[in-house]
Amino acid sequence: MIKVGIVGGTGYTGVELLRLLAQHPEAQVVAITSRKEAGMPVADMYPSLRGRVDLAFVTPDEARLTECDVVFFATPHGVAMSQARELLAAGVKLIDLAADFRLKDVSEFERWYGMPHACPDILAEAVYGLPELNREAIRRARVIGNPGCYPTSVQLGFAPLLRTPGLVDAAHLIANCASGVSGAGRKAEVHTLLAEASDNFKAYGVKGHRHGPEINQQLRQIAGVPAGSPEVNCLFVPHLIPAIRGIHSTLYARLTPQGQAADLQGLFEEFYRNEPFVDVMPPGSAPETRSVRASNFVRIAVHKPMPDLAMVLVVEDNLTKGASGQAVQCMNLMFGLEETVGLLQVPVLP
Amino acid sequence: MIKVGIVGGTGYTGVELLRLLAQHPEAQVVAITSRKEAGMPVADMYPSLRGRVDLAFVTPDEARLTECDVVFFATPHGVAMSQARELLAAGVKLIDLAADFRLKDVSEFERWYGMPHACPDILAEAVYGLPELNREAIRRARVIGNPGCYPTSVQLGFAPLLRTPGLVDAAHLIANCASGVSGAGRKAEVHTLLAEASDNFKAYGVKGHRHGPEINQQLRQIAGVPAGSPEVNCLFVPHLIPAIRGIHSTLYARLTPQGQAADLQGLFEEFYRNEPFVDVMPPGSAPETRSVRASNFVRIAVHKPMPDLAMVLVVEDNLTKGASGQAVQCMNLMFGLEETVGLLQVPVLP
Amino acid sequence: MIKVGIVGGTGYTGVELLRLLAQHPEAQVVAITSRKEAGMPVADMYPSLRGRVDLAFVTPDEARLTECDVVFFATPHGVAMSQARELLAAGVKLIDLAADFRLKDVSEFERWYGMPHACPDILAEAVYGLPELNREAIRRARVIGNPGCYPTSVQLGFAPLLRTPGLVDAAHLIANCASGVSGAGRKAEVHTLLAEASDNFKAYGVKGHRHGPEINQQLRQIAGVPAGSPEVNCLFVPHLIPAIRGIHSTLYARLTPQGQAADLQGLFEEFYRNEPFVDVMPPGSAPETRSVRASNFVRIAVHKPMPDLAMVLVVEDNLTKGASGQAVQCMNLMFGLEETVGLLQVPVLP
Amino acid sequence: MIKVGIVGGTGYTGVELLRLLAQHPEAQVVAITSRKEAGMPVADMYPSLRGRVDLAFVTPDEARLTECDVVFFATPHGVAMSQARELLAAGVKLIDLAADFRLKDVSEFERWYGMPHACPDILAEAVYGLPELNREAIRRARVIGNPGCYPTSVQLGFAPLLRTPGLVDAAHLIANCASGVSGAGRKAEVHTLLAEASDNFKAYGVKGHRHGPEINQQLRQIAGVPAGSPEVNCLFVPHLIPAIRGIHSTLYARLTPQGQAADLQGLFEEFYRNEPFVDVMPPGSAPETRSVRASNFVRIAVHKPMPDLAMVLVVEDNLTKGASGQAVQCMNLMFGLEETVGLLQVPVLP
Repeated sequence: MIKVGIVGGTGYTGVELLRLLAQHPEAQVVAITSRKEAGMPVADMYPSLRGRVDLAFVTPDEARLTECDVVFFATPHGVAMSQARELLAAGVKLIDLAADFRLKDVSEFERWYGMPHACPDILAEAVYGLPELNREAIRRARVIGNPGCYPTSVQLGFAPLLRTPGLVDAAHLIANCASGVSGAGRKAEVHTLLAEASDNFKAYGVKGHRHGPEINQQLRQIAGVPAGSPEVNCLFVPHLIPAIRGIHSTLYARLTPQGQAADLQGLFEEFYRNEPFVDVMPPGSAPETRSVRASNFVRIAVHKPMPDLAMVLVVEDNLTKGASGQAVQCMNLMFGLEETVGLLQVPVLP
Repeated sequence: MIKVGIVGGTGYTGVELLRLLAQHPEAQVVAITSRKEAGMPVADMYPSLRGRVDLAFVTPDEARLTECDVVFFATPHGVAMSQARELLAAGVKLIDLAADFRLKDVSEFERWYGMPHACPDILAEAVYGLPELNREAIRRARVIGNPGCYPTSVQLGFAPLLRTPGLVDAAHLIANCASGVSGAGRKAEVHTLLAEASDNFKAYGVKGHRHGPEINQQLRQIAGVPAGSPEVNCLFVPHLIPAIRGIHSTLYARLTPQGQAADLQGLFEEFYRNEPFVDVMPPGSAPETRSVRASNFVRIAVHKPMPDLAMVLVVEDNLTKGASGQAVQCMNLMFGLEETVGLLQVPVLP
Repeated sequence: MIKVGIVGGTGYTGVELLRLLAQHPEAQVVAITSRKEAGMPVADMYPSLRGRVDLAFVTPDEARLTECDVVFFATPHGVAMSQARELLAAGVKLIDLAADFRLKDVSEFERWYGMPHACPDILAEAVYGLPELNREAIRRARVIGNPGCYPTSVQLGFAPLLRTPGLVDAAHLIANCASGVSGAGRKAEVHTLLAEASDNFKAYGVKGHRHGPEINQQLRQIAGVPAGSPEVNCLFVPHLIPAIRGIHSTLYARLTPQGQAADLQGLFEEFYRNEPFVDVMPPGSAPETRSVRASNFVRIAVHKPMPDLAMVLVVEDNLTKGASGQAVQCMNLMFGLEETVGLLQVPVLP
Repeated sequence: MIKVGIVGGTGYTGVELLRLLAQHPEAQVVAITSRKEAGMPVADMYPSLRGRVDLAFVTPDEARLTECDVVFFATPHGVAMSQARELLAAGVKLIDLAADFRLKDVSEFERWYGMPHACPDILAEAVYGLPELNREAIRRARVIGNPGCYPTSVQLGFAPLLRTPGLVDAAHLIANCASGVSGAGRKAEVHTLLAEASDNFKAYGVKGHRHGPEINQQLRQIAGVPAGSPEVNCLFVPHLIPAIRGIHSTLYARLTPQGQAADLQGLFEEFYRNEPFVDVMPPGSAPETRSVRASNFVRIAVHKPMPDLAMVLVVEDNLTKGASGQAVQCMNLMFGLEETVGLLQVPVLP
């Protein structure tokens, strides 16, 4: 039984971790921290967990995290990196659901997250936790930078087109994405109030969004071009859906003559043939976010709406495959378990 | 042209006042205050007003409110009473959309709102601004306590049953109410986030809600019993609808033998025969909140589902008839205008 | 492994059964019928089941239901009773999620459902499938009338008050209920379109709803009074929540002097002490529908808002505990399994 | 006073026309037809109109439409063209909110709408009713093909970029659009049920949508290239927002070197300088659909997120500027009224 600690369990990725781990046969949450709510039973904040999670929030000191096998950070950016060294020294593995270990370029991190990086050496060692593209490295990792919600869907959608060189004009990719409001977290803010965000739709982050550099870093790696290379460049435009969960990405790539001749459907099916969580849908499909609601699945449909244009539609649950489910998937790999253990919940529809 | 000032225009009752007054032919907003947002054009906060409202927020000092004909307070509780004396002295009329002038019993006010009352003498003079029940007093008033959103619907629903003595067991009334989330205001709070309040339903305020004493004060006045009399007592239970606007009240009253013999439909139709904003629906109706969306109308249906039980269904828009529309209706009366001026917008459906 | 057949799997109770049974370790769905969609893979209609349910819809003839151990009817009213005799003769157990086996009085059934009853003898034998109140009979049953969604919540909320004689005025109970739209089923109808039902709230069925007689039949049985006795009478008033799932019941009962003296909290906690799916919340609680979303749990809070009035708040998921989860719970009992097998999914929040 | 007839007033464009015309000082609806609902008061179907619209639906024969000044067709495709000749012969002007007079190429119409065109000669005369691009022709028109909801936003967003030749690669335009569910009309269909469409997001029409050819016909006309010319080609991808009203279009165009050098913000502001209903927002803006809710306004923001890429964000209310409001705007022009009469409702926010 894996002994799990969770730092910062009061947000949505925290409660989603608890939902998943409460049903995981090989892992047990032994401590969950919140400075602010220390002493409060977790189920008082989240009555959905009554009878299933008996823990109370504790202070970091009380948590004795160094005795855990793995610690998840479901915290604001900057927390995981401040505690990483001590945990690693104690032999604890670490999965950060925030951004501390996603951007490999320290200056990019500092520019987008507005803080110095506390441990560039650990960042250098950290593994980007997207199993479909990085499985072997995750198995051996001590530190995981769990991918952002949007980047997960964009990478999985573009990967088959970029891995084979020469299919698309990779310098002009467009990722037109939309997310449910839970992606903004459980923070008291005006713009995500129901009275503001319901019956509404808008783009946001139009002057630049933190997931943009993460997407481009990873797409370049997938394509095998150097970091920062303009050969691969993706415009990322997020929108806000008046819904709780779900990310939908509509991806566009201009096809080269070689790409125009390719069998895109076959390419995608082959690429994801053995992936337990990626479902390539039949030709002509339009996946719905609800078809993966509260599950770790991703569904993808590839289209060629113009002879020289590929369009890829991707759906995921931003809190599961886009955050906590993916983190558990990484944990399974890091501890030698079957990758799907505890993650095969059937999506909730309707 | 009535010169209007608005104190505290950044919340939902403020923007609803602006929406209505921008279309009012006899009134002009000349100043709108916000300490925090002073200098910001109103339309920067509310792009819905772009091209229609050219004002910027000003500080209270800049606003020169004493030169207005009437000032609306769309502020937190406690602000209007602190400025009332000065405005009245300058001959300015005052309409408070918060609770400073609703509860006639100072100790009740202080108990429920947690602050001493700054001007009990002005409170004594203030008129409760529900035109259907208080029209003549409103015409002559200098200070209006604009009714709470829930109390408006509960009073209009119970009034015909209580005005005729002896119809119901008035000591055991039940008001089972539900409101859209905008009733909570434009405040950064977790429990009204879309991710919390959407796809959800709950009762709240189950240990006592501020609108309870207001409802009981007014129902007693309608019934003609002394303040505080246990002869009239209403249990008020609010619930939260995952919607932006709308209040729905389901009211229950046990009928006396006299009440059982009465023609309730005729009673309601007669009671509201000449009311421009109250629509008594045909027998068997179930009004929907959307049938009054963004309008000043109230729709009411009365039922007798058991021989000795009356059930009244009432819908209103909490921001219009439940707040800003009612305030404008009062203003019209106070300035000798046709009561409906600027308030006949057709509800927005769908 | 229990061999399960499902008749009529294209509606919401059907897909919810499939979601639950796909995760059930002791049951296997071997056939699912739909005359209209015969030949279509189930996962083509419900992509949420892709990779998890490999069945295609078959005609009733192809289904060979007589070889099943149990057959669930997720059909319109009237279907189960037409096939019951044949299945029982073949030794197959039968759980009807529609109303064919709920109302014990045939004339009541015929009045409310507008059709003659096809097998009054089987109706007489059928067991009302609410395990918390009827567990032993369910274990021995061959035919289950699975309770309606609203009646489940109303019964569980009133039962502790009615089982002890003399606590309440049982002749004047009020059940003010609200349901998400999935309760209306997956039928093409105008009034449940998103553009009609969203951002809206209304009562419906105000002239009488089919769940009214079911509620009263069962409350009388709980109270131990004869069928049809006016000693127990409950007004049932349903409302429509602009949400997908969830039922919230706000129940009112006038307390007798004996009831006023009782410890209601203790009464409820004692009554449900050993129930795995019923959670009596701490005093002062207001349960939210999302706290049981996509789960088989019910949460209940009991209040005494006036000295002589009890108020009970109950939440359930209408498709799980209100329909398919309850049906699986019955199946577990009928086949001697642990009652909670396959039903301990943690609610999905947010 | 303009005498107005409405054919087919039971759908959403019909009730929106009634909402607008009930508040129009120069027009009066004298007849509204529905074969199916003949005899029913309009306000029985739409209680939002109680007290404001006293008409009942009549049969086409009873309607005496030839005595009207103008007839709006808020009908399924194919109805307007069947009645156009008779009305024109009687001197009645005609505004079709369906597609009968949008596509100038008869074979395109027949291909996309699956029916022969009943009056190609009238189609040839018909004017496309987008006042911002076609104002003078509309003033003189007898027959208006009122634009589709999506095409209105796409045209207004791309027009400034296409009118000046050489700014963009017009052969590879992308219109990534999203609409509230009311765009699907008030039809009993499963996929637009609240339980299907709420808390969900998806693309649809991915194999081709009827608004695609309309968009391309019009963009070619705007750009001044021949009908069908591949020089201008736009991929149109619609998505479904879980909201009632609102269209949001995210438009992409690759900039030529000339376009890269242009001042796009200035270009848009100049293009729409005198337009009463088009609001070009400040640089860096992201318009929200709710900022135009229930109004005839369009808000546009233009961005250059990459040096060689223009992105235009456009919002409109699909039922107002996207349908009935635009139709009334056309009527105003056709009858020599001020274009904005009856159309200056302030958007409803929140």
